[in-house]
Amino acid sequence: MSLTPDSANPNARPAGSSRPLTPGTIATQFSKMDFPAPTGLRLNVAKSPTSPSPSPGAGAAPDSALSAGSNDTGDLSGPEPEAIVEARRRFRSESMSEQLSATLATMNLPQPERIFGPNEGESPAAREGDKGVSAEDWDKIKLDDDVPEAVKEPVRMTHSRNASKAEPTRVRSPLIPEQKHLVLEHHAAKEQKITPFDVEGAVDEEGKDLGIDYDKLVARFGAQKISQDLLDRFEKVTGHRPHPLLRRGTFFSHRDFNIILDRYEKGQPFYLYTGRGPSSDSMHMGHLIPFMFTAWLQRVFNVPLVIQITDDEKYLLQRDVKKQADMMKKIKGKKPLDLLRHYKQMAQDNIKDIIACGFMLEKTYIFQDLGAMGGAFYDNVVLMSKTLTASNIKGVFGFSDSDNVGMFHFASIQATPSFSNSFPHIFGQRDDIPALIPCAIDQDPYFLLTRDSADKLGYKKPCLLHSKFLPALQGSNTKMSASNENSAVFMTDDAKKIHKKIRSHAFSGGGATQEDHRANGGNPDIDVPYQFLSFFEDDDEKMRRLAEEYRAGTLSTVQMKDECIAKLQEVVAEFQKRRSEVTDEVVQQFQDPTRKIDPRPAKKAEAATAATSAA
Amino acid sequence: MSLTPDSANPNARPAGSSRPLTPGTIATQFSKMDFPAPTGLRLNVAKSPTSPSPSPGAGAAPDSALSAGSNDTGDLSGPEPEAIVEARRRFRSESMSEQLSATLATMNLPQPERIFGPNEGESPAAREGDKGVSAEDWDKIKLDDDVPEAVKEPVRMTHSRNASKAEPTRVRSPLIPEQKHLVLEHHAAKEQKITPFDVEGAVDEEGKDLGIDYDKLVARFGAQKISQDLLDRFEKVTGHRPHPLLRRGTFFSHRDFNIILDRYEKGQPFYLYTGRGPSSDSMHMGHLIPFMFTAWLQRVFNVPLVIQITDDEKYLLQRDVKKQADMMKKIKGKKPLDLLRHYKQMAQDNIKDIIACGFMLEKTYIFQDLGAMGGAFYDNVVLMSKTLTASNIKGVFGFSDSDNVGMFHFASIQATPSFSNSFPHIFGQRDDIPALIPCAIDQDPYFLLTRDSADKLGYKKPCLLHSKFLPALQGSNTKMSASNENSAVFMTDDAKKIHKKIRSHAFSGGGATQEDHRANGGNPDIDVPYQFLSFFEDDDEKMRRLAEEYRAGTLSTVQMKDECIAKLQEVVAEFQKRRSEVTDEVVQQFQDPTRKIDPRPAKKAEAATAATSAA
Repeated sequence: MSLTPDSANPNARPAGSSRPLTPGTIATQFSKMDFPAPTGLRLNVAKSPTSPSPSPGAGAAPDSALSAGSNDTGDLSGPEPEAIVEARRRFRSESMSEQLSATLATMNLPQPERIFGPNEGESPAAREGDKGVSAEDWDKIKLDDDVPEAVKEPVRMTHSRNASKAEPTRVRSPLIPEQKHLVLEHHAAKEQKITPFDVEGAVDEEGKDLGIDYDKLVARFGAQKISQDLLDRFEKVTGHRPHPLLRRGTFFSHRDFNIILDRYEKGQPFYLYTGRGPSSDSMHMGHLIPFMFTAWLQRVFNVPLVIQITDDEKYLLQRDVKKQADMMKKIKGKKPLDLLRHYKQMAQDNIKDIIACGFMLEKTYIFQDLGAMGGAFYDNVVLMSKTLTASNIKGVFGFSDSDNVGMFHFASIQATPSFSNSFPHIFGQRDDIPALIPCAIDQDPYFLLTRDSADKLGYKKPCLLHSKFLPALQGSNTKMSASNENSAVFMTDDAKKIHKKIRSHAFSGGGATQEDHRANGGNPDIDVPYQFLSFFEDDDEKMRRLAEEYRAGTLSTVQMKDECIAKLQEVVAEFQKRRSEVTDEVVQQFQDPTRKIDPRPAKKAEAATAATSAA
Repeated sequence: MSLTPDSANPNARPAGSSRPLTPGTIATQFSKMDFPAPTGLRLNVAKSPTSPSPSPGAGAAPDSALSAGSNDTGDLSGPEPEAIVEARRRFRSESMSEQLSATLATMNLPQPERIFGPNEGESPAAREGDKGVSAEDWDKIKLDDDVPEAVKEPVRMTHSRNASKAEPTRVRSPLIPEQKHLVLEHHAAKEQKITPFDVEGAVDEEGKDLGIDYDKLVARFGAQKISQDLLDRFEKVTGHRPHPLLRRGTFFSHRDFNIILDRYEKGQPFYLYTGRGPSSDSMHMGHLIPFMFTAWLQRVFNVPLVIQITDDEKYLLQRDVKKQADMMKKIKGKKPLDLLRHYKQMAQDNIKDIIACGFMLEKTYIFQDLGAMGGAFYDNVVLMSKTLTASNIKGVFGFSDSDNVGMFHFASIQATPSFSNSFPHIFGQRDDIPALIPCAIDQDPYFLLTRDSADKLGYKKPCLLHSKFLPALQGSNTKMSASNENSAVFMTDDAKKIHKKIRSHAFSGGGATQEDHRANGGNPDIDVPYQFLSFFEDDDEKMRRLAEEYRAGTLSTVQMKDECIAKLQEVVAEFQKRRSEVTDEVVQQFQDPTRKIDPRPAKKAEAATAATSAA
């Protein structure tokens, strides 16, 4: 996240092509939603500016610019295919949030005097009426807090595969050019292109810059221009004259700012959130003006502020190979981790600049993603995720564009424990300790990718031991199923249940009848009791003997089952005993990320010595 | 991650289509790598099993099954298109890791006696020769640790967009069927399908299960079967007879297990890593056998073990709408977060079962992704990422399949600070506090997505204030650039530099000459000094007057510039003063995630009272 566009910050979100945020793509987003149809909606706004210091407000007036759906059509002309009409209809439901909020405003929400406590801000005035709430009361407020019906409704889980019947990107009008850039000016020789990664104004046929058409941009994004009425209301509600950046139109557009004013007026809590993708060079005015503005907003509203420093984004989105290669050279980096650390350091430096913009310490939390989100572990997740393309993931796991991005990304999460420096409490910063991963063969694709990436990251490849799939009681081609009680022996089964399951449900490789079995013998290779026994019975000679006698028909299927039963009962009983000893405290200990673990293969000392003395 | 396949665990990674891990897709992965060509490679393995207790080993013998590239061809027949031949060539470089490791083995790595310290494991024998190392020494060892040349080489950063010239998924042979499932048996009516999400054996034309052909699977994955020689070497090196699951072939395949044995033999550290996607029902034997095996491995090697519980994966990959809807009903959940918490709780329950398998507390770290990775913040990242499809991201940001999955996923990270319960130290668990986000308009696409998803998650939508882009000194259509010193005023610039920059580089809207300016006036709307001044000058009357006089030509361009200079100097000096006061301690305080922040808009009390008294 960056407050400043790339034009002001070329190190930020690097350039790349972008598809337009057109009604087509908006439809993509909205097609999967199922809002109630928007109904009539009016929001009150007030007017009349005075001075930057607290001032009495004037009467309220409706702001028609805020009415629903007024800005969503852009200036597209020509026939409107049904998809677009539909998209637009759905798009209007954006205003649902306003509607909800209007409902909210009329509801039984905690009253200001129940929320507001002792002032800690800069203005010591007007303290009377405050009762103050403790942290406990803050939590309790939630319990009393009526939730609007629309939110209370059972939340529709979105399951991309099922929810989006049509491939969303196909919801696309012939009006929308296929080219990737955001097209706003059909008369321009080169259209303007505005994405989080590129900001380029349109250029006419003579190569002259046409600047950025903000009105069209706002219409296209479906946002709303900040009206004079809204500014007037701001002043009335807050008692502060709007900041020059607001009243002179640098901050020119909004979404639901009226809701924030509603809440402020009612004393309902809200907070500010802003952020930045860190840059290596010292920050310039373009970087800091938005922070100065936000600091001003914080002082006006006296609310909490969170600032996200997206060092992860800067690392991930940097597509300029040469730029990153130069940076690596400059920092004398050897591995991608060194570069990532450089981004983290830039973030720390930037944070100092940001703090100097004048935020209220007691209400401000600044965090960098690398560091705040899982520390060394998340560092490696980010490094890993940059080595995996969407193509890789589709190829290996068969995902499609209708799958969620969490799934695309998850391979990075499963890969990361393969790298020893993901666990500083065990391995410190050492990244040269390989992992051995015992897993079922179906997990191998994750680690095939991990091994590739280990090379790219300068880390050790993990080593693997693959297992076959453990058969269900019904045989190797059936599935153990937690919903089919009789397909598996559960670790909670008692001796009697185990006996019954094996006797009644375990697939037998014996003869069809007792006579047949005695005459022709059975087949231990497909006999589930024999297979299960083989997982636990350490005595090879016994296993050999059982197999032989089974084949010969001298060991009956019931005898084989009983051998298995006895062993499973023993194993499960032992497990249950240990399970009963696992207290919450023990669970806590195993999960304590601060508990130091000695990384050394201590026992090896014994084997080494043994080997030496044997030699 | 799960040790058991889906067949054993139907709640785990839910079903979905999968593309085969074919030479084509393997090529996809390897086509972006640039390994040195593999050279001759031989690894030594030892043989001769004896008993489960420590035993003297026998002589070593080469294991030809471990030589490079012997398993990568599968049983494809027919013509070999160049892409496949190339893929195969690249695929062989998988063995590079072995080669590297062989090199490593001959290098100046820390010697066992320098690594191994006091035994903490179960075997108190053979302590002599141990010197022990402190945690500090452990870190220092890295400094002495020679890194093999192959790793030392400047790491090639992979930049998907540039690195993959051809769309990788197009590297596909006509031999490879276009269907999505992993095809192993061309004679089967229904092919076997093995992915982390689906395990299905092949079925013949009569509908008979053909079981799973593990040999073909191993060959296709490019792994190696565990040979008797390898098992013999295991016994020789560890002094332990292989576990029944190893010697009876349930664990049947490996990658680089020989390297682990090399390291164990040399006393070089390594660790174990395994995991599980949690399931709601009590665990059955199929779930726990692999953990029992891993516990055994840990006791044999006496090394650290990390166990990842992928509750995030289970939530993300569950595509079965009905199953999750039922689960929501069962837990009386209202929002996706409730469901996510249910997965977390399942994870905690499963962890107890896992611990009961007998792991060494002093060497084992168990963690669940939700919880270990950023706590409440990461919870929301996961919830968010499930609401975004790859299509959404492509549509909004213009990414393609050759972009990395971190980029696809990043929108979830930038969305998450919009939800108040991401910050428990500020808002507790309340998710009903909306954020106001001041940002440049180019960041809007992130929050357009966030606002959609907020509805799906039962959270409050963030509200926004959008800014225009701040112009560079050269004018509104040029870019501020940190690499072009004169395109921007830096916050480190002194008064003199600011003077020079504005005077020499700020684009003027004045007349072409002084005479022209006096005669025809200038245009403040495109005048950069006027624009910059307008960001900071609070006095509207003054701004109006300056504009008027400029248009009239009575205010010269130099005078306008000097007005701007004075203001910028003031702003920058003030900033620099505050910047100098930002100590590391202050930075620390702002970033402290445990510092409680009062969430209440305290100052509102004042405005509310003022409003009341004014009314």
